[in-house]
Amino acid sequence: MFFKVKTSEEVLEILKGFSPVGEETLFLGDALNRVLSKEIIAEEDLPEFSRSSMDGYAVRARDTFGASETLPAFLDMTGEVLMGRVPAGSVSPGKAIRISTGGMMPDGADAVVMLEYCHSLDDKTIEISRTVSPLENVIRPGDDLKKGAVIFERGSILRPQDIGLLAGLGIQNIQVYKMPKVAIVSTGDELVPIDQMPEPGQVRDINTYTLSAFCRQAGATPVNMGLCKDSFPDLMEMVAGGLEASDTLWISGGSSVGTRDMTVKVLESFDDMEVLVHGISISPGKPTIIARIGGKAVFGLPGHAASAMVVAEIFLTPFLSRLSGEMNPSGDYHFHVEAELSRNIESASGRDDYIRVKLDKRGGRLFAEPIFGKSGLISTLVDAQGLLKIDRNTEGLYQGQIVKVMPFKHSRGVSY
Amino acid sequence: MFFKVKTSEEVLEILKGFSPVGEETLFLGDALNRVLSKEIIAEEDLPEFSRSSMDGYAVRARDTFGASETLPAFLDMTGEVLMGRVPAGSVSPGKAIRISTGGMMPDGADAVVMLEYCHSLDDKTIEISRTVSPLENVIRPGDDLKKGAVIFERGSILRPQDIGLLAGLGIQNIQVYKMPKVAIVSTGDELVPIDQMPEPGQVRDINTYTLSAFCRQAGATPVNMGLCKDSFPDLMEMVAGGLEASDTLWISGGSSVGTRDMTVKVLESFDDMEVLVHGISISPGKPTIIARIGGKAVFGLPGHAASAMVVAEIFLTPFLSRLSGEMNPSGDYHFHVEAELSRNIESASGRDDYIRVKLDKRGGRLFAEPIFGKSGLISTLVDAQGLLKIDRNTEGLYQGQIVKVMPFKHSRGVSY
Repeated sequence: MFFKVKTSEEVLEILKGFSPVGEETLFLGDALNRVLSKEIIAEEDLPEFSRSSMDGYAVRARDTFGASETLPAFLDMTGEVLMGRVPAGSVSPGKAIRISTGGMMPDGADAVVMLEYCHSLDDKTIEISRTVSPLENVIRPGDDLKKGAVIFERGSILRPQDIGLLAGLGIQNIQVYKMPKVAIVSTGDELVPIDQMPEPGQVRDINTYTLSAFCRQAGATPVNMGLCKDSFPDLMEMVAGGLEASDTLWISGGSSVGTRDMTVKVLESFDDMEVLVHGISISPGKPTIIARIGGKAVFGLPGHAASAMVVAEIFLTPFLSRLSGEMNPSGDYHFHVEAELSRNIESASGRDDYIRVKLDKRGGRLFAEPIFGKSGLISTLVDAQGLLKIDRNTEGLYQGQIVKVMPFKHSRGVSY
Repeated sequence: MFFKVKTSEEVLEILKGFSPVGEETLFLGDALNRVLSKEIIAEEDLPEFSRSSMDGYAVRARDTFGASETLPAFLDMTGEVLMGRVPAGSVSPGKAIRISTGGMMPDGADAVVMLEYCHSLDDKTIEISRTVSPLENVIRPGDDLKKGAVIFERGSILRPQDIGLLAGLGIQNIQVYKMPKVAIVSTGDELVPIDQMPEPGQVRDINTYTLSAFCRQAGATPVNMGLCKDSFPDLMEMVAGGLEASDTLWISGGSSVGTRDMTVKVLESFDDMEVLVHGISISPGKPTIIARIGGKAVFGLPGHAASAMVVAEIFLTPFLSRLSGEMNPSGDYHFHVEAELSRNIESASGRDDYIRVKLDKRGGRLFAEPIFGKSGLISTLVDAQGLLKIDRNTEGLYQGQIVKVMPFKHSRGVSY
């Protein structure tokens, strides 16, 4: 079979073919950053009653009309609204009732005069030195939210304030998309677990750790399948077990032509499978494989940890967002910051180059400093604070040019 | 006692007086986004042996000097390097050994010719159509990291690639700062838990949910203390219990003057206490109280959920970073994106105004659209994608002006 290397855009389009992994019901308090699988409609007004938004006196606004410091109005003080209680009395003309922030407005009153404009002359009389308009300092029923309003669309991610609004409405359980489970397999005869001392020729397994952490950061749950030798039956068993245990399977390793071919052959031995991508025109990350087995996506990632991480940042971030049900109308899943390129960069045309960059703030200007080094070195990614894309139709970028950098989450010592 | 309202800068400076909450040892795989409490030094080279970074043939570079497509070099193929093994043979003049990406370089060889420039003439002879330089396609011991190098400073936050590098070095357990525990108390006679139907005059507790979610998002652990009536002995017991159970205590509510004064009196009844801040010149959020009891910070936050969240974004984000041991040389804990202001905003001088804004991308331009509405409404924060600061020395901002917006994490439908 012949596969044409695909462009980034083609790959991103192909990944849109996968669907969210399912729904579950969660207690509101556990729903931070989760994605709603159903829209939510307000079943009551918020608030349900008129409340004061200030400390002061509940009055009839017209009783204050014309009041000023030189010509104050005088009202009879007839009690106090207790927090959490229905007011005992109502406000008739010429009367005022003491009220605190959040207190329920008494009948008859339509405004609140702030405490600082009120002066008690005696136990019964207050002097008011300011005019208030009707509804001034009053929150009306439904001001925050009206009954029947769509509060959140399906696909919304819940932030702290969103959870607060739902709490205010008494919505304790919500329907969200499940967090995708990702089976992670590291392949290679040279790999040993990190608790084992490598013999000459062997190296410790890095990809299980980088990819698991990457999953967690994206809100997905990694399922660590362990190490796999470069053997057809071993890999086949791993793939079968991984597909069983998860919603998507990520195999890293097989950077050599032989093992890559074996990975494809293993995948092809499954029923209802389709190789979707066999090579992407990016660097690093070209030897990436994407297949579909049943409804699940299987990724063959490069063995070099740094290359695998670049592919993860570019393609697996939007893929996991999609599996999580996130609605993203703009389709742009990556943050960007603008920075000034510190030196010229050449780039081979015909592929998108992802250059690792440091971000450096000097004299109020943000500079992007390319890190050069073999793409196999994980340290290049550790030194970097972000990735800079050089489009395949560009031959390079110039020193001083303003470029868009995709910062890594939690990059140290960076302020944008 | 008389307290002068403090500026944001003064408050941020005061918060620097608090220290990280302690250290613990973690398994590397659980350390994503945690902060190192000790620097880490490489105890070995990474890699420990010379490796090929390509599929091809390990050769002596000088044997390829002058080789080209028209004038190829011919070498004897004498075997293959098996992955994870010490090569069986060495490369003597005129010889080549097949090697895969990541394979250990055989003795005698100093370069790798990529497979695509090699052509097998028969079982024993390969034709090489390109000159390679010494060390070409070879990763040398210590190329990724040299023994003795400081890999990470104390205070570094671990990203996926950082965890990968530590895995590569076989570092399984690391010393990190503990995640701070935050006791959260919601006060107010009008509050009911969200699983209870409010009577007229009562409202559901929002702040426990917004502040708990805010803590989780910042990597801290919320300790939900529950609701507290506006009563001196009740609040005193809550504060004592909260301080016992946590590293910092956040009390929300008491937006009215009376309950705020009571909160201060409760705090003052503790030994070794100091009121550090009693009012901040910001809006919303002015009635914020900060005290120190023993070594722990106690915050009295506004009762309005939206005001409390603004105070949290501005002050509790850097405070929690500090408690978590995060090193941030720039001192800037907030992301910013630049956007074009969609309309004029007036601002009272003498205080920093935090305006809630929507971020809207239209025609490739990012607009910041101010959301007006009573600061007590949580919906204003739900509609917003970020906060825009209007400095207290500014009287307002103009339509079309480029402004810096602090985006909320995970704001829906926003790409920057």
